[in-house]
Amino acid sequence: MSVTINDIRSAAQALKGAVVETPCAYSKTLSLITGAEVVVKFENLQFTGAFKDRGALIKLLSLTDEERARGVIAMSAGNHAQGVAYHAQRLGIPATIVMPKHTPNVKVMHTRNLGANVILDGETLLEADARAHEIADKEDLTFVHPYDDAHIIAGQGTVALEMLEADPGLETLIVPVGGGGLIAGCAVAAKAIKPDITLIGVEAELYPCMYNALSGRTDFKGGQTIAEGIAVKRPGALTLDIVQQLVDDVVTVTEDSLEQAIVMYLEIEKTVAEGAGAAGLATLLTYPERFQGKRVGLVLTGGNIDSRLLASVIMRGLVRDGRIVRFRMNISDVPGQLALVTSLIGNQGGNIIEVRHQRMLLDVPAKGAELDVLIETRDRAHADTIKQALNDAGLSVELISMT
Amino acid sequence: MSVTINDIRSAAQALKGAVVETPCAYSKTLSLITGAEVVVKFENLQFTGAFKDRGALIKLLSLTDEERARGVIAMSAGNHAQGVAYHAQRLGIPATIVMPKHTPNVKVMHTRNLGANVILDGETLLEADARAHEIADKEDLTFVHPYDDAHIIAGQGTVALEMLEADPGLETLIVPVGGGGLIAGCAVAAKAIKPDITLIGVEAELYPCMYNALSGRTDFKGGQTIAEGIAVKRPGALTLDIVQQLVDDVVTVTEDSLEQAIVMYLEIEKTVAEGAGAAGLATLLTYPERFQGKRVGLVLTGGNIDSRLLASVIMRGLVRDGRIVRFRMNISDVPGQLALVTSLIGNQGGNIIEVRHQRMLLDVPAKGAELDVLIETRDRAHADTIKQALNDAGLSVELISMT
Repeated sequence: MSVTINDIRSAAQALKGAVVETPCAYSKTLSLITGAEVVVKFENLQFTGAFKDRGALIKLLSLTDEERARGVIAMSAGNHAQGVAYHAQRLGIPATIVMPKHTPNVKVMHTRNLGANVILDGETLLEADARAHEIADKEDLTFVHPYDDAHIIAGQGTVALEMLEADPGLETLIVPVGGGGLIAGCAVAAKAIKPDITLIGVEAELYPCMYNALSGRTDFKGGQTIAEGIAVKRPGALTLDIVQQLVDDVVTVTEDSLEQAIVMYLEIEKTVAEGAGAAGLATLLTYPERFQGKRVGLVLTGGNIDSRLLASVIMRGLVRDGRIVRFRMNISDVPGQLALVTSLIGNQGGNIIEVRHQRMLLDVPAKGAELDVLIETRDRAHADTIKQALNDAGLSVELISMT
Repeated sequence: MSVTINDIRSAAQALKGAVVETPCAYSKTLSLITGAEVVVKFENLQFTGAFKDRGALIKLLSLTDEERARGVIAMSAGNHAQGVAYHAQRLGIPATIVMPKHTPNVKVMHTRNLGANVILDGETLLEADARAHEIADKEDLTFVHPYDDAHIIAGQGTVALEMLEADPGLETLIVPVGGGGLIAGCAVAAKAIKPDITLIGVEAELYPCMYNALSGRTDFKGGQTIAEGIAVKRPGALTLDIVQQLVDDVVTVTEDSLEQAIVMYLEIEKTVAEGAGAAGLATLLTYPERFQGKRVGLVLTGGNIDSRLLASVIMRGLVRDGRIVRFRMNISDVPGQLALVTSLIGNQGGNIIEVRHQRMLLDVPAKGAELDVLIETRDRAHADTIKQALNDAGLSVELISMT
């Protein structure tokens, strides 16, 4: 195999003091909810907010003095960019990062603040990648691949090493899969230390690249996913080879389950997970029977989620739980109607967040109005009580389950 | 003094294994931003999401067998309720918690799930408190005060003990102050271990009860604060006595600085702070010159923030940073106008989130419309660029700095 347990043990030595040995903690409440014995490895608490620091540093440390002096280049709009930039700066290695043109400025700024030369080029990741290889060839820079590289894989494998040191009783590891660097390294480490451990990879349903490669399927939706950190179209060659030999299964999870898992991490563990980082917990929510009673280690891979997206995921979680509801009703266009509706809602303890009138649609009577009221409730049962109170007052109320 | 370092050391022994020894970690990025050497004690990672577990358990352990059998009662709509309920359940002590009538159901549910008998009574905290004392007298239950109790103070003091064990170089501790239990305990512990350490208390500007008690002032605004965990009207007698003797200063922070600190914890530390929990960081943001270069320990006291409030704080943070802006402009009410505006914004890379037309106001021409466009930008400079592009096309644009 291209990576051995010794490579990973050496990597762990090299990382000491240079990356965070993140907490690995049992969660009583997540265990209660999922039925598994849940242990979480908080890689979102790495300095750059993701596990990518590990592989990046091991790769940089493998360079010759001459290669270091010439510098490195990488293509990434995400966590890999920051991992490479941060450790290159620490080691005094010039780093160039190519990002697609429309990368959010926050990410560009973060990477520039870590001392990297950021080049915005290409409409897509594919174009940016081609451009990065061009520059690497022309300027003789070492290209740092995000996953298909034995040093990167060895670095990421230290995650499983730390987990099994912290919690030797782990029976299953669930690891998010993008290009496969993390799961390949974790599989080599975990199976060497504890051959009977089960390794499960998880991908976003829209990007089942490893799942397809293993099962010979070709269904591939693509598109917008909340787990953009694992939205990869093709696994690496090295990583696929290791995964085929050592990983027990690769599963997929829906966008909805990823959103739920993000909210649970926030509300229960008080921690911020990006979409890809929440995939392990989403797996427990999706296939609970499979993990009943088992001691399962989840790698919470990263916490770099766009703030507006996070706010939106929180609000959508409240809608999912029935704690924010939109009621639509037709009312007569006469004075006092809104006062009637709002006092009925207020008396039931509903908190009105927004009111909208619609008078121009032809399915609304000319002397009526359609009223949309957005209400914060205690829970779904409370929402039902409020609806009932409006019905009892003669209003025909429709629940519109979206904000 | 009513509480000694020995009481706190004994409390620490008693807590071992029963409460979480939470992480106490140096933050490189918060240090860079504030100019202090920032160390954070993550008490939001206690099982109930706040430090209140500590004092509650010490109080419960102090009861006689007879008192345990009769049970305890507390009044709280917040973290104290969950701390008492959780440890009472662990020890098999019947617990009654009185909460005001309109307490959010989530809090009621959480406390009931921890096995407590929750009674909803009283319109205000004051009324609920009176009711709890009535029940305590009638049913001969031990009343567990949230702060004005030597056992509670000793329990909370273990926070400072752990901080100074983890980081003996700390020169200043900043501790949120509600009734004063946490700061009193921390002051006793810290000054005993390291007499030259500086102890700073922090209160929400709207609830400066300890600040007033120390300075003889009486200004008191009250009202809605995001830091409801420290919205207390009068400090305890025991706690005030200790604070007067041992605490170097009490300062206040604004609502705005509390919101900023919550967002920083979320974006940088990937951790959820409630308003009161963010008060220490808000202090560094408000008085940076005072803490320059000093090694400062912040107690992040809790992470129990309402989800909708958190989402709102995140969005308001984006508005504060100019990453979400609302532009208002008058356009002619003819076909193609909205297409013009939206394509100008799109070409500049602005992401339109919402569009509203207003035609009925008399300051809008009869053949015109007032258009509000809510845009996500990369940063404030990007917002300015978009505004300029609209101006260059002959549109007069007003920035409305709120969502």
